[in-house]
Amino acid sequence: MAYTAKITVTLRQSILDVQGKAVEHALLNLGYGSVGSARIGKYIEVLINEVERGEAERICNEICLKLLSNPVMENYSFELEQVN
Amino acid sequence: MAYTAKITVTLRQSILDVQGKAVEHALLNLGYGSVGSARIGKYIEVLINEVERGEAERICNEICLKLLSNPVMENYSFELEQVN
Repeated sequence: MAYTAKITVTLRQSILDVQGKAVEHALLNLGYGSVGSARIGKYIEVLINEVERGEAERICNEICLKLLSNPVMENYSFELEQVN
Repeated sequence: MAYTAKITVTLRQSILDVQGKAVEHALLNLGYGSVGSARIGKYIEVLINEVERGEAERICNEICLKLLSNPVMENYSFELEQVN
């Protein structure tokens, strides 16, 4: 049994998101005046080959903290989806 | 009324994901043998100030196709969340 982890890593609200600002300006220049507050993050999908959901969650938290995010500047969240 | 659009942009399955491969190798080197098949994408949050959900969806599709993704190489998906 395995789980697909769908992980999103985003900059903390207090940190200036320059990529997001660039996207906002681009949207404005394209004429989308109703669109704002863009924030850009990362999306990561990994397959975790574990039988127990709890163990898969533990591993997912660990790899997010150790490798996939920078806990000083970023938040992460994830969902596990069971794969047969 | 407004909607928060949570957009994920991922490389199409047929396209080699070099960032994903790098993450896989890093995970293996860190001792996470049960984790594989990493795919890396982008996560974008924008606020769409529209009253009607249908209109917000139309705008979201448009900005994904025109600005946020490269339809030749990438897929996108999004969810709209109503903000009061």
